[in-house]
Amino acid sequence: MSRVEFRTSPAQYRHWRLDVDGPVATLVMDVDEHGGLVPGYELKLNSYDLGVDIELYDAVQRLRFEHPGVKAVVMTSGKDKIFCAGANIRMLAASEHAWKVNFCKFTNETRNGIEDATANSGQTYLAALNGTASGGGYELALACERILLVDDRSSVVSLPELPLLGVLPGTGGLTRVTDKRHVRRDLADYFATRSEGLGGKKAVGWKLVDEVVPRARWQEVVAERARGSAESAGRLPGGPAIELTELDKTRTGDSVGYRYVKAVLDRDRAVAEITVSGPTAGAPALMDGAYAQGAAFWPLAVARELDDLILDLRTNETEIGTWLLRTAYDDENGRVFPDHELSRIFGYDELLLAHYDSDWLAREIVLYWKRTLKRLDVTSRSLIALIEPGSCFAGSLFEIALAADRSYMLLGVFEDRDPDTVPLAATIPAAVGLGPANFGPLPMGNGLTRLQTRFLGDPATLDLLEKASGNPQLNEAEPAEALGLVTFVFDDIDWAEEVRIAVEERASFSPDALTGLEANYRFAGPETMETKIFGRLTAWQNWIFYRPNASGPDGALRAYGTGKRAGFDRRRV
Amino acid sequence: MSRVEFRTSPAQYRHWRLDVDGPVATLVMDVDEHGGLVPGYELKLNSYDLGVDIELYDAVQRLRFEHPGVKAVVMTSGKDKIFCAGANIRMLAASEHAWKVNFCKFTNETRNGIEDATANSGQTYLAALNGTASGGGYELALACERILLVDDRSSVVSLPELPLLGVLPGTGGLTRVTDKRHVRRDLADYFATRSEGLGGKKAVGWKLVDEVVPRARWQEVVAERARGSAESAGRLPGGPAIELTELDKTRTGDSVGYRYVKAVLDRDRAVAEITVSGPTAGAPALMDGAYAQGAAFWPLAVARELDDLILDLRTNETEIGTWLLRTAYDDENGRVFPDHELSRIFGYDELLLAHYDSDWLAREIVLYWKRTLKRLDVTSRSLIALIEPGSCFAGSLFEIALAADRSYMLLGVFEDRDPDTVPLAATIPAAVGLGPANFGPLPMGNGLTRLQTRFLGDPATLDLLEKASGNPQLNEAEPAEALGLVTFVFDDIDWAEEVRIAVEERASFSPDALTGLEANYRFAGPETMETKIFGRLTAWQNWIFYRPNASGPDGALRAYGTGKRAGFDRRRV
Repeated sequence: MSRVEFRTSPAQYRHWRLDVDGPVATLVMDVDEHGGLVPGYELKLNSYDLGVDIELYDAVQRLRFEHPGVKAVVMTSGKDKIFCAGANIRMLAASEHAWKVNFCKFTNETRNGIEDATANSGQTYLAALNGTASGGGYELALACERILLVDDRSSVVSLPELPLLGVLPGTGGLTRVTDKRHVRRDLADYFATRSEGLGGKKAVGWKLVDEVVPRARWQEVVAERARGSAESAGRLPGGPAIELTELDKTRTGDSVGYRYVKAVLDRDRAVAEITVSGPTAGAPALMDGAYAQGAAFWPLAVARELDDLILDLRTNETEIGTWLLRTAYDDENGRVFPDHELSRIFGYDELLLAHYDSDWLAREIVLYWKRTLKRLDVTSRSLIALIEPGSCFAGSLFEIALAADRSYMLLGVFEDRDPDTVPLAATIPAAVGLGPANFGPLPMGNGLTRLQTRFLGDPATLDLLEKASGNPQLNEAEPAEALGLVTFVFDDIDWAEEVRIAVEERASFSPDALTGLEANYRFAGPETMETKIFGRLTAWQNWIFYRPNASGPDGALRAYGTGKRAGFDRRRV
Repeated sequence: MSRVEFRTSPAQYRHWRLDVDGPVATLVMDVDEHGGLVPGYELKLNSYDLGVDIELYDAVQRLRFEHPGVKAVVMTSGKDKIFCAGANIRMLAASEHAWKVNFCKFTNETRNGIEDATANSGQTYLAALNGTASGGGYELALACERILLVDDRSSVVSLPELPLLGVLPGTGGLTRVTDKRHVRRDLADYFATRSEGLGGKKAVGWKLVDEVVPRARWQEVVAERARGSAESAGRLPGGPAIELTELDKTRTGDSVGYRYVKAVLDRDRAVAEITVSGPTAGAPALMDGAYAQGAAFWPLAVARELDDLILDLRTNETEIGTWLLRTAYDDENGRVFPDHELSRIFGYDELLLAHYDSDWLAREIVLYWKRTLKRLDVTSRSLIALIEPGSCFAGSLFEIALAADRSYMLLGVFEDRDPDTVPLAATIPAAVGLGPANFGPLPMGNGLTRLQTRFLGDPATLDLLEKASGNPQLNEAEPAEALGLVTFVFDDIDWAEEVRIAVEERASFSPDALTGLEANYRFAGPETMETKIFGRLTAWQNWIFYRPNASGPDGALRAYGTGKRAGFDRRRV
């Protein structure tokens, strides 16, 4: 199939409408049956595929940046009697395993992003279920802060995946029902085995929805609740909207390039060499400067580019199993000191963090970085950071190295390169830098910072690192290794060989086992609803998806809608 | 294959020796190569199969009850240069998926039990690695409080599963390395991809082991550390040892019977009807009475029987997908009031809880109940509690109903039964009873009580229940339903039909999807190392086990030792 593209804009939407009326936005799901991303299925009853969800993701992002005045978002349906029937079943039945899993991951990330907007952006999402919400449709509602269901004796909420399809709800439904909405687990069990769902007062009594509203009062009550949410929302003030202009992206068969982010794909080695470039100029002194630059403002531009790259490679390049992560500074003047470059990044971090509690744009950019780094955390690729001369792993950019499964740092410089032909930067040993961005504002899904996860049970080291973070002496290779900031340090004699071995070794291992290993190690320590969704629930779902009871010739997923009964191997595992 | 039996005793051990010397016991692993449970493999290099682990489990249990004076347990190897090579690979490669998964579950439970003995029984486990500990061998060491490794330039610890077998360490290794021992996650990544392992000072520096000891000082240092642990252990005083006499068990093709626990297997309905009987006499006033009864003491006898039944059914009856859980009181005098029966169970609970902090036997029995109920929690069968007249779901026995996915309670009595031919108990409506055992001493793997998990985010109800637990009025069907203690209440007119539907429905669903659903719902709320092992890690491992990259004809698990290279589908999922 052709490459999937994640860039879109409201003018291109086929499945959603975004209406903004003062502080209240309405996001109307109205899926075009014939607008499937892949041929072979019809998106009936507001069912969705990856294409529908790409538009939803775009809309949620644009609400954050292009509609700073919006404080409440009503999610509803443009169809009669149906809110959303969930992920399209024929699409799932026809999809390869890797596609199903990647699709679920992306939809999960978007739903987590909706919760993040409610919790941190002051944009509260309400689900206005003007008809039945089943499966992924109800799970979309579960991601909203409040769920209203029309009370018309036919509209219900349901999780029919288990009885109808022999799989689990794949976008957090089981976790959110108990852990977020506190539905009693035995009632939740009954609910998830009852394909016909529940509506009316019982749905309220069991906490499945917050209220049911007669159709006659529907518009009025929804509007009232939205106004109430908008009034109590903590959306920050700030400057004007930022237009998320189309990303300037060059995509070839073996490269992906943007303004600051580049990836070169080496299919023989199964490697993507990714480079993130630092800013070419210092941070503005005030947020006004950021508003003036708009989507070109370095931290926002890099987050968007990295976000798009992760999605592109995950979906389109499943055989590229290892990502090598580098940073680079590429000053237009060509000749700067690394300290200068690191401080430049710290300057951007400082500007944003200083205004995190007072300016919506500063906060949104930090939140966007947080979500993009989280996307990296749940990416099923081996991540190896390479810290070389000319790099700028400092502050928010150092989080990329901390997100990696391993990091390699060069001691000294590459000796064999002619100093007259390489930029000055390459002649200065690499340094890394910790700053305030590493100690709180960019937590992982487990609620801890990457440094807290790295130094689990070792608060003394964390404390030392925070106190010493202003000391540039600690940023060089040997102290960085001694402090545990990087995995390995090698000099020029061993560097190429060690990196080669790491890459070749990774390519020789079972990709499945690597995915499992990384999914376990990346989330040491406590678990949250988010890590449970990506860890426990997703892992079970992957297993179930892959078993013949779901996906075999007689499996429930393939039998659905054919009139045939699924045939199960009845042995419990 | 023939039925697996979990009952054993030291006299029957083929693979372990248990030596007790005052407060220090030594558990020597010395696996008989030719003692495999199933034909087709040799247990070389102290590798293990289910049979080896059944003996280990028995030894750990007997240490608790038969050796009350033991305060430290040294786990070591009877072989030269090898501590343990982990689970036998040919056994794994030849096993069916369900067998592998069930095997890992049981071994995990035993390792959790070892940690429980260290944490709560005052029996501290030390791993004395007198040779290499690889894979499951190192994971066994990880379950111990302290790991000593001989420093002889060849002995190492390793987790070679990923590079050699294309699977994950299956008994908690990944979780314990980071979450228990706080090995940095990037070092842990390197360690788990390096089949040759690590020894010496590096293993200490990375926190993989606690100390390395030269062979010349080995015996002396191990003995010293064991004495140190024994001196600081909080083992409680109390009466003499309790002999765990052989369980009196009658096993036929369609039934399993013990003194208090019975199961009838209905293969057509894929159901096991399990009944746990209450005590036939009141609790003794003092622990002396419990010591006098020994293994026949009701709470201990029931825990042992239920434990054995769970293991038997899980391993031998994989097609029996639903367990119906009943309790019964069967007074020899035949005619008692339910209140009497419930109070009788409360009497046992009270005796044990009153002495939980002062008497080793009281504590051990409570801990055994805790572990047995946890075993129920992680059992991949649908659990439905049926609360009928003549039942005694009170206190510790009510935890069985709380462990169930659903509970059904009869309102009133079965009308069509002739009162002259049924015991009086069956003519009195059922009641349930909460007591102190429900509010703390029997937590689930997530660290919460079953009531806390059930009423997650609802402390008001929990508080109400605790305050009202002495009020028998609240124990009847309608208030129990209103309070959320049971899922559904039906009267005699609907009962049989509703139960039939629930059972038939469960049997019609995908067994895989049910396993995933239950594994998610049963652990709402926080996660612990234990729930991560059974949830996140196990679910990933199940998926990996099932994928062709591990278990297919060219999979790594089957290629191992053949000289062939594994062939992988390189797509990342």
